[in-house]
Amino acid sequence: MLQTTEFYPTRERYTEGRFPRNEPVIHASPVQRAEGPLSEYELEKYERDGFLSMEGYFSPEEVAPFFDELDQIEKDPVMCEKDQVIMDPNQQKVRSVFDMHNISSAFDRMTRHPHLLSMVQQLLGSEVYIHQSRINDKSGFCGNGFEWHSDFETWHSEDGMPAMRAVSASIMLTDNNAFNGPLMLIPGSHQSFVPCPGETPDNNWTESLKTQTVGVPPREALADLANAGGIEQPLGPAGSLLLFECNTLHASNANMSPWPRSNLFFVYNSVDNRLQQPFSGKAPRPGFLGARENTRPLTAVRP
Amino acid sequence: MLQTTEFYPTRERYTEGRFPRNEPVIHASPVQRAEGPLSEYELEKYERDGFLSMEGYFSPEEVAPFFDELDQIEKDPVMCEKDQVIMDPNQQKVRSVFDMHNISSAFDRMTRHPHLLSMVQQLLGSEVYIHQSRINDKSGFCGNGFEWHSDFETWHSEDGMPAMRAVSASIMLTDNNAFNGPLMLIPGSHQSFVPCPGETPDNNWTESLKTQTVGVPPREALADLANAGGIEQPLGPAGSLLLFECNTLHASNANMSPWPRSNLFFVYNSVDNRLQQPFSGKAPRPGFLGARENTRPLTAVRP
Repeated sequence: MLQTTEFYPTRERYTEGRFPRNEPVIHASPVQRAEGPLSEYELEKYERDGFLSMEGYFSPEEVAPFFDELDQIEKDPVMCEKDQVIMDPNQQKVRSVFDMHNISSAFDRMTRHPHLLSMVQQLLGSEVYIHQSRINDKSGFCGNGFEWHSDFETWHSEDGMPAMRAVSASIMLTDNNAFNGPLMLIPGSHQSFVPCPGETPDNNWTESLKTQTVGVPPREALADLANAGGIEQPLGPAGSLLLFECNTLHASNANMSPWPRSNLFFVYNSVDNRLQQPFSGKAPRPGFLGARENTRPLTAVRP
Repeated sequence: MLQTTEFYPTRERYTEGRFPRNEPVIHASPVQRAEGPLSEYELEKYERDGFLSMEGYFSPEEVAPFFDELDQIEKDPVMCEKDQVIMDPNQQKVRSVFDMHNISSAFDRMTRHPHLLSMVQQLLGSEVYIHQSRINDKSGFCGNGFEWHSDFETWHSEDGMPAMRAVSASIMLTDNNAFNGPLMLIPGSHQSFVPCPGETPDNNWTESLKTQTVGVPPREALADLANAGGIEQPLGPAGSLLLFECNTLHASNANMSPWPRSNLFFVYNSVDNRLQQPFSGKAPRPGFLGARENTRPLTAVRP
C-alpha cells in the first residue's frame, strides 16, 4: 500500500499541481449512513461541497455563556501570556485561544453534546476525539483575515495526521454577517490535495497562527478551484453551526464592521487516524494544537 | 455667515464628536426635482442613504472597452511610472489610475454620457465639472482594502472643496461580488461630518492613496454610525452604477477571490463649489487629484 506521504506531497516534498483525494469524504458504513442523524440529503451535500451549514442550530442563549468566557480570558493578563493565546499581529487583541475544552468544563461538555457528537461520529464512521479546540475572535474593526488554506495540509505536515478523516465543527458565538469577516469556503476543494511550496520553519506555529505564509496554496490552484466551485460564506445568527471537512479550502477577510465575530472550533479526529510523526520531519507542535496524549474516544454528555 | 471651516473642523482643527451636515443632500430646485431624470422615490432614497445603486444600468458590453484600456495601461511601463498611477503597497499591481478622462477620449465621452450627466446635474442642482476621475483596480487575490473614510473630508482638507456639493459615479467594469472586495457604505453617514484626528503630512497623497492613515474617522464614531445605519455593499454585474454623495462613509475589504474587481469613478462637482485653498493649510494636491484648471461645465455627448 502506498504511504500517505506519496498521496500528499507538500512543502519539503512540494510538487506542482493537484492530487485527487485518495479516501472517502464520508467514512460512515452504509448502515451508519442510513441510521442518521444526518439525512442522506445532508450527507450528499457535505460529500459534494466539503461542508454543511446549519443556520441557527443552537439558540443564541445556548452559546452566549461561551462568549462571556472569552471576554474573561481577554481580561486575564496571566492567561494572555500563555502560548495557547494568540494575539492579533497588528492589535493588542486576542485572535485565538486554543485548548478551550481543557480550560473550561462548559466547553468540554459542549464538545460532547450528544447531537454534535453523533453527527461527527457518523461522518467519520468511528469513535472520535478532540484533535484541537479553539476560539477565533475578530474584534470590531480590528480582526485580520486568514489566508486560504486547508487545515489538513498543516495537520499532515506539522502534526502527522495521516489521513483525511477529521471534521471541524464551527459554532458561531456572534452573528456572522457579510461585514465582520465570516468564513469563506471553496465548495468541492476537499476533493483535491493542493501541495504548498516552501519549507516548514522550526516552530512555525509561533508565527503561522498570526499570519500564515507557509501552507498557502499557489494562486493558480486556488483560482482553478474557485472558478470550478465558486466561493461561499455561510452566514447566520449566533448559535449557527458549520461542519467542514479537514481538507476544504477556507479563508476569511478582515472585520470591517464594529461588530465582533467570534467562532468556536472543535476539530474531531477519528480514533483510527491518531497522529504519527509530522510529515515535515520537524518536531511535533504543542499538544494544544494537535492532541497526542488525551485521545480517548469522547462520550456524550448532556449540555 | 459662518465659514465652512467652522462647520467642518478636522485634522489640524480636530474636535471630538460629530457635526450635523449644514447643507442639503439634494441641491435640485423643486422644479428640477420634479423634472427628473431621477424619480422622487430615487431622490428620497439618495437623500436618506447617501447613495443610490442601479444594478445593470449599463450593459457589460458597454463597459468592456474600459476594462481593456486599463489592461493596456498596466502593460505600459512608461505609464506605470507616472504619479497618477498608484501601485498596490504589497504587490506590483496597479491600484488606481487617476485622470482617466484626460488620458482617454472614450473615458471623457463616458463622463459626458447624457443619462449620467443629467442625473448628476439634477442631484447637484447646477452645471457640473469633473473634480477627479479614476479607475480602482483590485486584481485577483491581491487587491488591498480601503479604510473607512469620507471623500469630502479629504477634498475639503487637502483640495479646498468648500461645501458638500459633489457626487461620485462609480461604474463597475467587472462583476462586483461578495468576495472580490466590493464597496461598502454606511447608509445615513452623509448626514454627519466626522472630524478625523491627525495632522496632514506634506505631500500626504503620495502615501494616502496607497494606505490611508490620516483622514480616518475614530472608531467610536464609525461604530455609532454603523450601528444606526448598518452597512451595505451594492453588488452587481459589470455595467452596474452607483451614485454616492461626497460625504458618505465608505470602505472596502481585500479581494479574496481570483476574480478582478475594477470600478470606474467620476467625481462631479458643482460649478458653484469650485476649489479654494486647501483647508489644511498645505499646498494643493496635483490637478489629477483635484481639478483647478479645467473646470468648465460639462456638455453632454452621445457615447
